[in-house]
Amino acid sequence: MPEPKINALRIDSTRLWDSMMTMGKIGATPGGGSRRLALSDEDKAGRDLFCRWMKEAGCEITVDQIGNIFCRRKGNNDELPPVMIGSHLDTVPTGGKFDGVAGVLAGVELIRTLNDAAFETEAPVELVVWMNEEGSRFSPFTMGSMVFAGQFPLEQAYACTEITNPASTISVKDELIRTGYLGTTPAKARPVACYFEMHNEQGPILGEAGFEVGIVTGSFFARYFIATIRGDAAHVGPTPMDRRKDALVGTARLVLEIDRIGRSYGPDGRSNAPHINVYPNVRGVIPSEVKLSCDVRHSDVATVGTMEAELRETAARLARETGFGIEIDQYYEFGPIHFHAEMLQLLRDTAGRLGYKWRNILTVAGHDAVSMNVLCPTAMIFAPSRAEGISHNEREYSTPEDLAAAANVLLHAVLAKAGKAP
Amino acid sequence: MPEPKINALRIDSTRLWDSMMTMGKIGATPGGGSRRLALSDEDKAGRDLFCRWMKEAGCEITVDQIGNIFCRRKGNNDELPPVMIGSHLDTVPTGGKFDGVAGVLAGVELIRTLNDAAFETEAPVELVVWMNEEGSRFSPFTMGSMVFAGQFPLEQAYACTEITNPASTISVKDELIRTGYLGTTPAKARPVACYFEMHNEQGPILGEAGFEVGIVTGSFFARYFIATIRGDAAHVGPTPMDRRKDALVGTARLVLEIDRIGRSYGPDGRSNAPHINVYPNVRGVIPSEVKLSCDVRHSDVATVGTMEAELRETAARLARETGFGIEIDQYYEFGPIHFHAEMLQLLRDTAGRLGYKWRNILTVAGHDAVSMNVLCPTAMIFAPSRAEGISHNEREYSTPEDLAAAANVLLHAVLAKAGKAP
Repeated sequence: MPEPKINALRIDSTRLWDSMMTMGKIGATPGGGSRRLALSDEDKAGRDLFCRWMKEAGCEITVDQIGNIFCRRKGNNDELPPVMIGSHLDTVPTGGKFDGVAGVLAGVELIRTLNDAAFETEAPVELVVWMNEEGSRFSPFTMGSMVFAGQFPLEQAYACTEITNPASTISVKDELIRTGYLGTTPAKARPVACYFEMHNEQGPILGEAGFEVGIVTGSFFARYFIATIRGDAAHVGPTPMDRRKDALVGTARLVLEIDRIGRSYGPDGRSNAPHINVYPNVRGVIPSEVKLSCDVRHSDVATVGTMEAELRETAARLARETGFGIEIDQYYEFGPIHFHAEMLQLLRDTAGRLGYKWRNILTVAGHDAVSMNVLCPTAMIFAPSRAEGISHNEREYSTPEDLAAAANVLLHAVLAKAGKAP
Repeated sequence: MPEPKINALRIDSTRLWDSMMTMGKIGATPGGGSRRLALSDEDKAGRDLFCRWMKEAGCEITVDQIGNIFCRRKGNNDELPPVMIGSHLDTVPTGGKFDGVAGVLAGVELIRTLNDAAFETEAPVELVVWMNEEGSRFSPFTMGSMVFAGQFPLEQAYACTEITNPASTISVKDELIRTGYLGTTPAKARPVACYFEMHNEQGPILGEAGFEVGIVTGSFFARYFIATIRGDAAHVGPTPMDRRKDALVGTARLVLEIDRIGRSYGPDGRSNAPHINVYPNVRGVIPSEVKLSCDVRHSDVATVGTMEAELRETAARLARETGFGIEIDQYYEFGPIHFHAEMLQLLRDTAGRLGYKWRNILTVAGHDAVSMNVLCPTAMIFAPSRAEGISHNEREYSTPEDLAAAANVLLHAVLAKAGKAP
């Protein structure tokens, strides 16, 4: 294939869109979204469909011990470390059709495009579906990629039980076995030439300013906490109001303070308290204890420290004022990461050469690319999110053109790194 | 037995206390309380023990279709409608050893005392253990007594599933079958001469003012609501703070308003928001919907109407200010009830004759006696609650003397109504 023909190569936008809509039907929700919680029946069905497509595309499929699925398109020199691309197929409980899926199916489309053009790369190309990116059912998020990259122990991942139900004893390992995705390939790092991930932005920045592609230079910094608020159980009836220590009332004050903190640090400030467990959570008893998952995030590392200090001071003040016991324990930290400068420049050059309007952008969400960034040169491409950038919502949307632009940048960046067989 | 000997009859305080401590060991919690959720394994064990004691005391035991246990001590004229006493053995998730149990075991002690004295009553005496008084696992509360009194349909009660887990399909009927308490006796009203229930106060009023017995003249009025707060799901990271509709943040404002309302109507005002379901309640998604069980209560009926109006106006104002959808739907109402004047006078006279310092008091909690009040002359006796009157808490406490005083009033009131065999 002469040089000009390679430059003219484009993915099939209609086929990519059709595959998105087909995958979106698995676990379809009434509002047009998808529900495929990690290692659920629906997630298994999505993964099964993906594997069928990849077999039809002639890929060699392996599943590792944590359920990551690797699909290999051989290179001319198959001893070279692969150029890797990937994302995830699991969703939040009521998710959209794009989050994660766009990156996986852009990879499927990329391989189909290379097959149609009978294009042989020098290095092999591997497409990965990572296990449990969302962390909705099993925490933490990006579990599969973290185990692969050596950032989270396999046995610890196996032992994680459903956080959606504090009484559950169903573990990741149980569900890997049940769904048939407990592979035998070691879940550990091996030589990888580089890693690309395409994803929808999940925010409004690109779309509202008319950009077609986002080059993700790195991530926000985030710290995650569990706040424990201790009141005192008592009967909801005979207990006079002035003798109560209602842990949910104390929590309500803390939730409002957390929300206020996020709004106090400019447009890059974020704070959340999205997950709550109340004990005993019955109608006849004043709540005695609440556990609240919360976080603070910012693009600036030092500012996150300031936000955390304000959170801790606020909690201490509430505890003094109300007599509640309030503890704030950090359980996780994310970022800041900086993607690989040369990879980013390749993406910018590629987007420019293909004629797309691009801009640099930071991610405020976790992604499997963040795990991979410790292992090999890594970079991410964002496609615009429409519908005001909403995500983790059935209304999540990108246009066929949005996906095609990002997928074409992905295609040509992969070709640049994998090289043409002589 | 000559008249003076009857007047001198007293229950065995030590035996009553020992039976309380023995029952409290079933489902014992680390902090000295009990956990016997309705129709759980622990509740079954408590009911089994009770039945064994009643068989040993020579009672005839029947179980009705909703799992209420009736223990009959024959009268000289066994055709007469029985004098009934009762309470419950189920507890909240982390309850004390006294709530409900005191009334049941005072009944056990009463029957043992009559047996020891070989005292034959003219009318039969029946001791009842009502099924699911607490409503912690299956809602509504006082389920068994309401079905018996014709206030709640049997089939509707059978179909209730666990509210502790929104995904649960385990029903009351399933658990009646599993625990062996699906009886065959029709769960419907039959002639009852009168009904007495002894209970611990669950508040601080009697104990702190030095009263030994409370004569419960009636109940507060309470209205129960489910507040539905609708926000919009979005990703916790990339979604700017000013574009969020976090349903848990909206709920936090409502919880604080509900708490404020209860404090605004004098010492008899109460309000609660003890039970919450958040959707999707995962760490990566801004909450889209919250269902909050809440209530307002007061001794004065008109004031409850005012409190409800304030709750609804407050919710409407919050909805306007924040753009959340907030709906307030009533799901239950309780009281006001007035116990039977002649029965109350009998209790006052009896307490006075036995030399106890008594006062009138209202109940702010639901009790099985409230169900029975529609069926026959009904009255309640409270024993003081120590430890600042705390209840639905492992620290709940009454002294042996507190229980003995109330049990002796119960004994002599029952003898007055059942009469001595000629």
